[in-house]
Amino acid sequence: MKPIQVGLLGIGTVGSGVFNVLQRNREEIQRRAGRAIEIAMVADLDVDRARSVAGDAVRVVKDAREVIADPEIDIVVELIGGYGIARQLVMEAIAAGKHVVTANKALLAVHGTEIFAAAHQRGVMVAFEAAVAGGIPIIKALREGLTANRIQWIAGIINGTTNFILSEMRDKGLDFDAVLKEAQRLGYAEADPTFDIEGVDAAHKATIMSAIAFGIPVQFDKAYVEGITQLGAQDIRYAEQLGYRIKLLGITKRVPAGIELRVHPSLVPARRLIANVEGAMNAVVVQADAVGTTLYYGKGAGSEPTASAVIADLVDITRLHTADAAHRVPHLAFQPDQMSDQPVLPMAEVVTSYYLRLRVADEAGVLAKVTGLLASAGISIDAILQREAGEGERHTDLIILTHDTREGTMNEAIAQMQALPTVIAPIVRIRKEELA
Amino acid sequence: MKPIQVGLLGIGTVGSGVFNVLQRNREEIQRRAGRAIEIAMVADLDVDRARSVAGDAVRVVKDAREVIADPEIDIVVELIGGYGIARQLVMEAIAAGKHVVTANKALLAVHGTEIFAAAHQRGVMVAFEAAVAGGIPIIKALREGLTANRIQWIAGIINGTTNFILSEMRDKGLDFDAVLKEAQRLGYAEADPTFDIEGVDAAHKATIMSAIAFGIPVQFDKAYVEGITQLGAQDIRYAEQLGYRIKLLGITKRVPAGIELRVHPSLVPARRLIANVEGAMNAVVVQADAVGTTLYYGKGAGSEPTASAVIADLVDITRLHTADAAHRVPHLAFQPDQMSDQPVLPMAEVVTSYYLRLRVADEAGVLAKVTGLLASAGISIDAILQREAGEGERHTDLIILTHDTREGTMNEAIAQMQALPTVIAPIVRIRKEELA
Repeated sequence: MKPIQVGLLGIGTVGSGVFNVLQRNREEIQRRAGRAIEIAMVADLDVDRARSVAGDAVRVVKDAREVIADPEIDIVVELIGGYGIARQLVMEAIAAGKHVVTANKALLAVHGTEIFAAAHQRGVMVAFEAAVAGGIPIIKALREGLTANRIQWIAGIINGTTNFILSEMRDKGLDFDAVLKEAQRLGYAEADPTFDIEGVDAAHKATIMSAIAFGIPVQFDKAYVEGITQLGAQDIRYAEQLGYRIKLLGITKRVPAGIELRVHPSLVPARRLIANVEGAMNAVVVQADAVGTTLYYGKGAGSEPTASAVIADLVDITRLHTADAAHRVPHLAFQPDQMSDQPVLPMAEVVTSYYLRLRVADEAGVLAKVTGLLASAGISIDAILQREAGEGERHTDLIILTHDTREGTMNEAIAQMQALPTVIAPIVRIRKEELA
Repeated sequence: MKPIQVGLLGIGTVGSGVFNVLQRNREEIQRRAGRAIEIAMVADLDVDRARSVAGDAVRVVKDAREVIADPEIDIVVELIGGYGIARQLVMEAIAAGKHVVTANKALLAVHGTEIFAAAHQRGVMVAFEAAVAGGIPIIKALREGLTANRIQWIAGIINGTTNFILSEMRDKGLDFDAVLKEAQRLGYAEADPTFDIEGVDAAHKATIMSAIAFGIPVQFDKAYVEGITQLGAQDIRYAEQLGYRIKLLGITKRVPAGIELRVHPSLVPARRLIANVEGAMNAVVVQADAVGTTLYYGKGAGSEPTASAVIADLVDITRLHTADAAHRVPHLAFQPDQMSDQPVLPMAEVVTSYYLRLRVADEAGVLAKVTGLLASAGISIDAILQREAGEGERHTDLIILTHDTREGTMNEAIAQMQALPTVIAPIVRIRKEELA
């Protein structure tokens, strides 16, 4: 049977990885797919570099539209990234009747619903395993492996840059800024690390997972996004004393009122497996009604891990290519005309538990005032720790762990506590997820 | 489109779970499969119990062959277990042109090659996600998610009974026999626990994974199988002091000379994620050339976790039902006519590292003799611990961690050390897996 013809748009880090792995493991992949998979064309603005990676057997062009227009091409792989030209090219590829494989989490988080609808209309497949958690086959697990389940929640460490930074902050007791510099030096963080450290990248991926898990449209604009830039080494230490690690978690959860979708630093009990995921590794925990808890761990980024996911999609599409369109794996595991209309909840409606650190004047009655305020708000306390703020200081750190409460209620309580004259610095609030 | 018609052979623990989950999540499953999945018939020797689970809408029969013979049935689910009648029924179902879903690890480990060959000939699918690690979609990960990779090794905690026992032995400092009784009382171990505690169940599962990962025939008879019955609480303690946990691991590994396939208690560094998998949970680590390390964790047994895997297979088969036979997922991820002929190595050829505990007379020169013997054998030592065997005793425990060495070489060295007059009890040997 004729090999499947693939066109790569972009042959940077991931594109080179796809090329190299497909070459190296060509025989095994062909045996598994039942058919050869050939990169027939590559489009890249840097034609010379592309040619040096792809060699002479592959047709290299500057213009991505030549790939899309070529009638021999079966699958277009979009590895350009970003919201801009990538969106046009993906939509054009779909319109031209090509299947699409992408690693572009930003594009799907913002324009996914439109893209999947267009693909569904046109009868082509859009696959995106590489867009979430690199080489870990999490999309396949959610969409196929756990297909018998009603998913209750998902919590993931899905950004390697921030997890590396948090691991280093904990191991070395350093503050965020110092570790960020080191991360950049070692290549774990970009020169412009904003998307990573502000939680945007994790939010892109959490948004995609929420759509797969709950059958809702892809709604990045509704996600609550908070990164790690405000975390201090002392909060990591206090959390440790209380039996917790701090991780940047992407969380999506089904509750009676709707769907939670949020990214923020979270205290996680140290005995949870996910709390022990270190460095640039990723992990996703899924809680589902039939199977219970499952966890998936591996490299979330990198040339060959991401290529592994792209190629898995190529093989899937190759296998399903001859199946009738109604039976290909629906893009979001639901038919677009049967999407759930459960709303994504505003952050104020989320119910979770909290770590609070108040720096207070070392006066009698401070504790009583603070705990009194929390009690009036109906917020119950799980644990309190009182620590001298530092050598010879007349201030104290008051650390409070609360039980579950509504975020809006907590916001009001924080405002009231902040207004106390004895509270002398901005209150630190970090959410806590027991993940039981 | 007409619902896919499923026949259950056996409606015990797993069969009831399949029935209940399919009922409860029927709408979501139908949306995801693109088609309704109906249990049309159930065969069980206990017809009354079957009817009480299945209700009146399902046709209940005593004879499994009625299900197989029914022309309306598309998929037969074999949930009887064991090597006996289940084998005949599975082969008959294949001959009758039915797709088969099974949770029967014993059957596949021993007769898998024959079963997959027959299915391939007949053009039907045999799926078995439920046969390995319960609800964790590990077969799908190996066969599809990691399809771009050359797999290097797999190590798994794949028997919940033994992992529960080992966790309890560690937590409570008790010996094996005491914990086994408790495990039986709590329902984590069967009245006849042989298959679990002797490692046979884990070996069935490891054998299946070796075939998927390396494209070799399914060869349970070649597996090295050692259970946990000889483990003592003191070895768990010593291992802990040295920075290790003891787990029953199912291991399969590609080495230049062939394929390793073995199940035995193993020391694992405490900092590895898999070392922290406790109770009846399962976890499988896979090392692959493109993606690196991935780990999959979840419930390895139980009514609904196993049902989750069975239903995932039903949905997969439903989706692929209309694809042409050449493009369905090959049963072992390779076409049977292209299987690798890499041999499964005898245990003596395996290279690994070891924990040894020698009980020796408290005499001068013992350490020199023992280390001298190891040195002559070319076995290098990683660590030594010497501990008084107990209050007022004139014996010492000599604990040795070795570097990698060939098992055959270690066997000879152990025989020589055992022959020393100063070695006064059988030498304990537990293999060590760094899993780096």
